[in-house]
Amino acid sequence: MKKEKENKLMEKIVSLAKRRGFVFAGSEIYGGASGFFDLGPLGAQLAYTIKDMWWKRFVEHRGDIYGIATSVIMPEKVWEASGHLSGFSDPLVKCEKCGERFRADHVPEGNKCPECGGVLGKEEQFNLMFPVTLGAGSEGAAGHLRGELAQGMFVNFKNILDTMRPRLPFGIAQIGKAFRNEIAPRDFLFRVREFEIMEFEYFVREDEWEKHFAYWQSEMKAWIADVGIAQEKVHEVEVPESERAHYSKRTVDFEFEYPFGQKELYGLAYRGEHDLRSHQEASGVSLSYEDPQTKEKFIPHVIEPSFGVGRTLLAVLCSAYREDKLDGEPRVYLALSPRIAPIKAAVFPLLKNKPELVGKARAVYEMIQKEVPHVLFDDNGNIGKRYRRQDEIGTPVCVTIDFTTLEDDTVTFRDRDTGEQRRVAVSGIIQELSELV
Amino acid sequence: MKKEKENKLMEKIVSLAKRRGFVFAGSEIYGGASGFFDLGPLGAQLAYTIKDMWWKRFVEHRGDIYGIATSVIMPEKVWEASGHLSGFSDPLVKCEKCGERFRADHVPEGNKCPECGGVLGKEEQFNLMFPVTLGAGSEGAAGHLRGELAQGMFVNFKNILDTMRPRLPFGIAQIGKAFRNEIAPRDFLFRVREFEIMEFEYFVREDEWEKHFAYWQSEMKAWIADVGIAQEKVHEVEVPESERAHYSKRTVDFEFEYPFGQKELYGLAYRGEHDLRSHQEASGVSLSYEDPQTKEKFIPHVIEPSFGVGRTLLAVLCSAYREDKLDGEPRVYLALSPRIAPIKAAVFPLLKNKPELVGKARAVYEMIQKEVPHVLFDDNGNIGKRYRRQDEIGTPVCVTIDFTTLEDDTVTFRDRDTGEQRRVAVSGIIQELSELV
Repeated sequence: MKKEKENKLMEKIVSLAKRRGFVFAGSEIYGGASGFFDLGPLGAQLAYTIKDMWWKRFVEHRGDIYGIATSVIMPEKVWEASGHLSGFSDPLVKCEKCGERFRADHVPEGNKCPECGGVLGKEEQFNLMFPVTLGAGSEGAAGHLRGELAQGMFVNFKNILDTMRPRLPFGIAQIGKAFRNEIAPRDFLFRVREFEIMEFEYFVREDEWEKHFAYWQSEMKAWIADVGIAQEKVHEVEVPESERAHYSKRTVDFEFEYPFGQKELYGLAYRGEHDLRSHQEASGVSLSYEDPQTKEKFIPHVIEPSFGVGRTLLAVLCSAYREDKLDGEPRVYLALSPRIAPIKAAVFPLLKNKPELVGKARAVYEMIQKEVPHVLFDDNGNIGKRYRRQDEIGTPVCVTIDFTTLEDDTVTFRDRDTGEQRRVAVSGIIQELSELV
Repeated sequence: MKKEKENKLMEKIVSLAKRRGFVFAGSEIYGGASGFFDLGPLGAQLAYTIKDMWWKRFVEHRGDIYGIATSVIMPEKVWEASGHLSGFSDPLVKCEKCGERFRADHVPEGNKCPECGGVLGKEEQFNLMFPVTLGAGSEGAAGHLRGELAQGMFVNFKNILDTMRPRLPFGIAQIGKAFRNEIAPRDFLFRVREFEIMEFEYFVREDEWEKHFAYWQSEMKAWIADVGIAQEKVHEVEVPESERAHYSKRTVDFEFEYPFGQKELYGLAYRGEHDLRSHQEASGVSLSYEDPQTKEKFIPHVIEPSFGVGRTLLAVLCSAYREDKLDGEPRVYLALSPRIAPIKAAVFPLLKNKPELVGKARAVYEMIQKEVPHVLFDDNGNIGKRYRRQDEIGTPVCVTIDFTTLEDDTVTFRDRDTGEQRRVAVSGIIQELSELV
């Protein structure tokens, strides 16, 4: 019963996301493309705001983290050195009867095809990188779409040392797309083939890694609260040694209670010196740091806090989704914090067919739009329906121009969460909205 | 002589960009990858600021343009319908002696290989899309990295109609990466295989296209001035019919005088109804707009203003690059506007070995950093060298803590362009810097 209710909840969120312009299936008019999504106007703005908050917090307002932007396609040598070509793969089995392929660890026991009941063949490793050929024809060079952002930071480590002369500890950050050729994309934005990541590599002295690990673990928790993810649904899980990468001495997963189960949201991994050492060996370029005081040379160790944009979006939507009754009617709303809500306020004339109301509402809308972006004008349908439409997309305030407005130049402010209304002078609207967002 | 001087200028800008952390060759420790670049901390921040200015201006502060974010990989059907699979190609010739390939239109007349003098073979068309296989093995589906952003807007046109109920004229915008498998990447950031674009499709009634075209042409000019590109180096060029796409009734290229020649910076194209009609025919989904008053149904026409991020960066750097003499010494500086300068201010103790100066400078730095991000602390080398380092990266103000600071709590503000200094009270620094940026 619980499982069914949770599936139903996920369906409702996916349906709202599509219906109201947050998330569409990729290339939907062509039947969609499995594992790809397009963000509509509200989803794109929500993602934009989340990324901007992250960049300001972890790059712009800190002196110790350098933001970079590296290429999506990187040459094959990078992925050989990183181990992705040999190790970045999923176990795959193929049905000998119907030809369908499955992830071996997702097939129920019994070695029978879940589709047709046929016999499944031998397990093979399927590499998840997307190879591309750079340049023309058989002389082209081999490259791959990046399977993770981190390698972009590692191959630029020396560039950062040479140009910025940083002192330990310091980080290198970026936000960007990564790609994995998943055999079985699933669970909406959770397991996809193209995704966006916000991540940094934080370089430290080996004997200080535990201190920094603890610091970043607490910083990630603070971020989770600030971005609007329900903290009580987040669980910090120590990844046991048997499931960690061989070079990692400690990894903590931040898991979220999605409607489809408790699964990974963010990750925090101590990667040791493994990555820099591998690239040093493969490229022949020294990736040592020299201590400016002691002149001691060594390869720093690295701690990696990693934040998926799509999973953040999904956790924020799941955290904000509410069903209640207002004025005796059931309703759905998103309790998004005003800071991240894609639309900050909506402006309505009470009635559509009264030109004096519509004209005044337009004027108020234009006044707000200049100062507070992300404001909507809507005169479509009755006022109750308009309120419910804004509730559904999480707009914190609806501003309504009614007949009283024409007399005393006040409007109503309606609160999304309580449905309560109060009158505000037109001259005070900007101030009130600015404080809210 | 002029040509040589210009090549030299380009070399100087490329060298500064690498030396100071704006732009690195992609995966440089592995020898680089032709046509790929990584943005270092200063280039990434400059690009971030440019994109944020664009998004705020053309999406957030307007009510008529909807920002979206679509996937980089799109299924083959999209690229068949758009004509990219048949038409997005360059003419290629191969030397029969040495095997080298060249763009046919870049080879000097005479049909001889520019490398070895051998005979060149027959001209062939080389498609510039990057194909990828989605899913496992021979049953995988065909997809392509997008060659342009526009198709993401066209395939989501119906989603926008259904979810946002916009009225004509309106636009759909996005910022993102696109890919072209160039045979001969060249001219630094100008002709690359991976690039970022800021673009919107603006949908209009057919009989109003000229009015909107003129409006967007003037808006693009206003943007060029505001972002810090030298207006006197920008030329609006009417693309003649013979060079336009067959469906375009008018295209204007904004060309910039790069050191390597006058070449495209931005484009403004009237694409008619071609794209939406092609996708309607290929997908079988109606892409008509219904006029809410008259109920008339029709496919809107579209005007496309397109802005490359890398070319903006390149034009901004070329526009800001200056050589002059200061205090009798030659120097190089970037005259970036404070709004886009990646570092807004640098804070120095006059001397590195005076703990009271260093301590005070640290305190001032931390005070500023909280309010005005993008501030550097530097105590490395003599003060003259530190000023020159900041000049080279375009930092508008250097704030120096000297012995007078310890007496009267004032600092010096040094202006980048003139080198002039004046004293400012510590209590007034935030105010002064906030006004500047």
